[in-house]
Amino acid sequence: MSLIVDRRDLDFVLFEMLGADRLADRARFAAYDRTAMGQILDTAQALAEDVFLPIAAQVDADEPKFVNGQVEQPAATGAALRAWAEAGFFGLAFDEAAGGLQAPWTLYTAATGMAVAANTPVTNYAFLTVAAANLLAAFGSDTLKAQYLPAMVEGRWFGTMCLSEPQAGSSLGDIRTMATDRGDGSHALKGSKMWISGGDQAITDNIVHMVLARLPDAQPGSKGISLFLVPKMRTDAAGQITGSNNIALAGLNHKMGQRATTNCLLNLGETGETIGWMIGQPGRGLEYMFHMMNEARIGVGHAAVMAGLAGYLHSADYARTRPQGRPAGERNPAAPQVPIIRHADVRRMLLAQKAAVEGAQALCLFCAGLVDDIETDPAARADAQALLGLLTPVVKSWPAEHCLEANKWAIQILGGYGYTRDYPLERLYRDNRLNHIHEGTFGIQGMDLLGRKIAGDGGAVLGRFVAMVQDTIAQARRHAGLGPDCDRLADALLALDRAVQALLGCADAERRTANATIFLDAFGHVVIGWIWLWQARLARGQLDNPATGEVDRLFYQGKLAACRHFTLTELPLAVARFAICGSLQSPALDSDPALFGG
Amino acid sequence: MSLIVDRRDLDFVLFEMLGADRLADRARFAAYDRTAMGQILDTAQALAEDVFLPIAAQVDADEPKFVNGQVEQPAATGAALRAWAEAGFFGLAFDEAAGGLQAPWTLYTAATGMAVAANTPVTNYAFLTVAAANLLAAFGSDTLKAQYLPAMVEGRWFGTMCLSEPQAGSSLGDIRTMATDRGDGSHALKGSKMWISGGDQAITDNIVHMVLARLPDAQPGSKGISLFLVPKMRTDAAGQITGSNNIALAGLNHKMGQRATTNCLLNLGETGETIGWMIGQPGRGLEYMFHMMNEARIGVGHAAVMAGLAGYLHSADYARTRPQGRPAGERNPAAPQVPIIRHADVRRMLLAQKAAVEGAQALCLFCAGLVDDIETDPAARADAQALLGLLTPVVKSWPAEHCLEANKWAIQILGGYGYTRDYPLERLYRDNRLNHIHEGTFGIQGMDLLGRKIAGDGGAVLGRFVAMVQDTIAQARRHAGLGPDCDRLADALLALDRAVQALLGCADAERRTANATIFLDAFGHVVIGWIWLWQARLARGQLDNPATGEVDRLFYQGKLAACRHFTLTELPLAVARFAICGSLQSPALDSDPALFGG
Repeated sequence: MSLIVDRRDLDFVLFEMLGADRLADRARFAAYDRTAMGQILDTAQALAEDVFLPIAAQVDADEPKFVNGQVEQPAATGAALRAWAEAGFFGLAFDEAAGGLQAPWTLYTAATGMAVAANTPVTNYAFLTVAAANLLAAFGSDTLKAQYLPAMVEGRWFGTMCLSEPQAGSSLGDIRTMATDRGDGSHALKGSKMWISGGDQAITDNIVHMVLARLPDAQPGSKGISLFLVPKMRTDAAGQITGSNNIALAGLNHKMGQRATTNCLLNLGETGETIGWMIGQPGRGLEYMFHMMNEARIGVGHAAVMAGLAGYLHSADYARTRPQGRPAGERNPAAPQVPIIRHADVRRMLLAQKAAVEGAQALCLFCAGLVDDIETDPAARADAQALLGLLTPVVKSWPAEHCLEANKWAIQILGGYGYTRDYPLERLYRDNRLNHIHEGTFGIQGMDLLGRKIAGDGGAVLGRFVAMVQDTIAQARRHAGLGPDCDRLADALLALDRAVQALLGCADAERRTANATIFLDAFGHVVIGWIWLWQARLARGQLDNPATGEVDRLFYQGKLAACRHFTLTELPLAVARFAICGSLQSPALDSDPALFGG
Repeated sequence: MSLIVDRRDLDFVLFEMLGADRLADRARFAAYDRTAMGQILDTAQALAEDVFLPIAAQVDADEPKFVNGQVEQPAATGAALRAWAEAGFFGLAFDEAAGGLQAPWTLYTAATGMAVAANTPVTNYAFLTVAAANLLAAFGSDTLKAQYLPAMVEGRWFGTMCLSEPQAGSSLGDIRTMATDRGDGSHALKGSKMWISGGDQAITDNIVHMVLARLPDAQPGSKGISLFLVPKMRTDAAGQITGSNNIALAGLNHKMGQRATTNCLLNLGETGETIGWMIGQPGRGLEYMFHMMNEARIGVGHAAVMAGLAGYLHSADYARTRPQGRPAGERNPAAPQVPIIRHADVRRMLLAQKAAVEGAQALCLFCAGLVDDIETDPAARADAQALLGLLTPVVKSWPAEHCLEANKWAIQILGGYGYTRDYPLERLYRDNRLNHIHEGTFGIQGMDLLGRKIAGDGGAVLGRFVAMVQDTIAQARRHAGLGPDCDRLADALLALDRAVQALLGCADAERRTANATIFLDAFGHVVIGWIWLWQARLARGQLDNPATGEVDRLFYQGKLAACRHFTLTELPLAVARFAICGSLQSPALDSDPALFGG
């Protein structure tokens, strides 16, 4: 049994649930029939298990160091990324014209997920490079693309996103880094960039930074921000490195987890001129960034899921083999101990993890499918875009909350062992804690969902989503035994509707969003409940088919159990939370800051 | 503003809520009037802030090492503990006859809490020494007490609890360490002890281990276990060290947090004879351990609270001073940024922490007061013992769950900074994660509450507790404005009653306890809801008094806000969870272990 992927479940989601093999009907993805997809997943799994997983503890313990203004880090990190690059995974989803393999985003997400489950902080370098290259591919000039894109798609040069500054984290409109026209089509950049993952490293010859900065005459706030490509090293027209671009590494942040990913404070233009080139139009930098944000936020949510999945698989393996205690009712203290999976509370902790990670993994892949639809299905594009917009705050936040909780349960199953660094659980838990913070905090996702995505169109997209859920309920009702699950999801939809009516009817925007984080969590439960009912309906169908074999029967029964666990023990909490939101009461909003002392 | 204690709140709980100054009316505590208590709290605060807090990051980063069979650890750890010992805190609650200061357990808990908030892993050595010394004082022979107790009470020798073994963690009945009579009143011990906090260290000349072991003819299971005092070093009658007792340090565990506390695998009787002396009667070792377990479990819960409190105070301080973003409705991007405490969602995260940590701190001190009643109030003893038994699983578990959650929110308020080791939040979060595991896991506490404490007497003690809560509700109803809080707590009591009726009516013990962990969490909410309504009633009374000054008014308004936050946003979740338990449904219980793959 792999400790980083359940291929049976991945196949179920990709092919039985989402029909990803039908993507090959689209011209762009013609090479990706089910066999080709399977081969790519096999390659990813082999690299993840043989290259990424074995070094995970080592690169966590031996974290990157700041020595004489440069990064020192274990060679294993770079070696793993080079193997990943050589297998083509940096360029998997890019256009063939750009040197890519033009695979569906769905396949890219599934394949990279295995490496993420094995070793999130090492894969971050690839994740960031792909995100930066996507930005360049979408908005860069042909000249810039010709000069930088091939090396990024091949994984020879890595990329970063330089958004935050010491005084501007969540509030990006307040960045101060300045870009001054040099008169030759380039700009001189000056300022400090904070929290830059992969901002410097000892792996690649060059780093391609995507930097947000202001022109001297730019208006204040987010509309005055432009986007610049700023390389670590200057190059000639042939792409050969000619010298430093004067980006000084001022220090590394020392994090609780994800330690193998450097996290840097960079000073631009301090030790000499730092030259960059504008991408796209002035003043549209944040808009471009947000264009790529859906994919980035799916990526963060997916990383949370993968940490949760690795913890689930590891703790299930432990529970099957660790003897401790005796069955309920056994009074003979000399009777042999049983594997702890025989205790109902241990299975409860396993089911809770399974419900969170398998549910959220399916949501991530569903959202990756929407990205593919947006790109390759003109008829579906508008609806897919709107639905993805609605689901993005959920896919970013729900796994960060509930797959972190899954990691907590995984530690708990191992007891004291789970708390030690001899097992991967505590590392997964530390790694996972970041996901509520970067790419937009939990609180910001809640404001985005309630303020922009729901109130922004008067609930129209939400209404279409609810209709999809109702359709799933209607289909599930045809199957014996799913009635209670359908009822509970319908209850949650009703509670959602009541809350939304109350919230949309509230003219005070601050009060409307005061409980936005609570609303986001509850709405995420509806989304995951919908995923589970969808999976349970498919499982029920397969169980009703006499041709389904014994091994598959266990798999589908596991789906029914996780669905039931989720609808029984989780959805009622969402109902309670919707009622809180709908009450429009917020003791926090009504509290004077002075009540907290100081 | 202190970052480890809110003395105004501590005074409120001790004196306005619990009337701890009235303990001085009891002969044992005659020296402890309010002034004396205040002086001891001042001393503890000074040591915690000046000695324990400044070294917390250092002793976390420089964790103890296993070198040539011995422990190497930073000198700062021992220095802090010596200062603590010199101030008398090891012996604070012990009899004067034993060299102690005979203070109430309530005061001991409050005073040590400050050092725990500053630096849990360093204080663990003192916590374990006091627990071992308590065991010795309660059950040891006069000879053993004369030989070992003074050095422990003075903090010159530390103590440990040696319960677990590699094959026996939660299942203590399965321990195998053997004790063979040497014919001179002593025993030779042979076996391995695992997870021994403070099991070896580089601080004190000697260590006094309290070891569970079996006599050769002992019956299997927990009734065959005896308790032995086993020193690290042998001593003569005068207490002078004469040589090694052959307890080999086989290795240190490397933990996610609480790193400054060594955690050891010890081999007894492997390199030579390890000699110990039985404490009390054969076969009663576990019974003695459990006699001290209430205090130990309050201590673990209290440590979880203190980590939560330190995180709350730190994040509140940060929120008051960190500028980021603008007030809701401010459209001018050039307007100055405001401190993040001005954002409702940040205040929500502060209120959530305040509700958890101040509520749970009051519960810990209430339970410490029950310990004092058991010891010094014969008329109240039986009821106090029963109530403490009911509340112990809650005081052990609820803070481990919800004050860990508080630490999660504290990190979130600091954003990326909270995730770095430059701030204490991530360390508090790592430290706190242990508290659900040691001194009985979350799952075991649930079984204890539902199986032994509630079903064990047919719900009788629970009924008395519910009557206390109803009395608090009745008193609170006299105050304007607390009606909604009273209603919600009454709703939760109703849901509790329904669940208990269903659970007690279920003849299948395994089904009855399948959701015991969920029940424990919900019951904990009722207990904390009761604490909050009690505090809100007192606060309301003070606010209705025109003589109450402005600073105090803010304090009491903070109490009302936290109470409202808890009853509004948390108690409905308990109602939902009670309904789940009362349904007697458990998809986990009904799941075949094979559904989890493998």
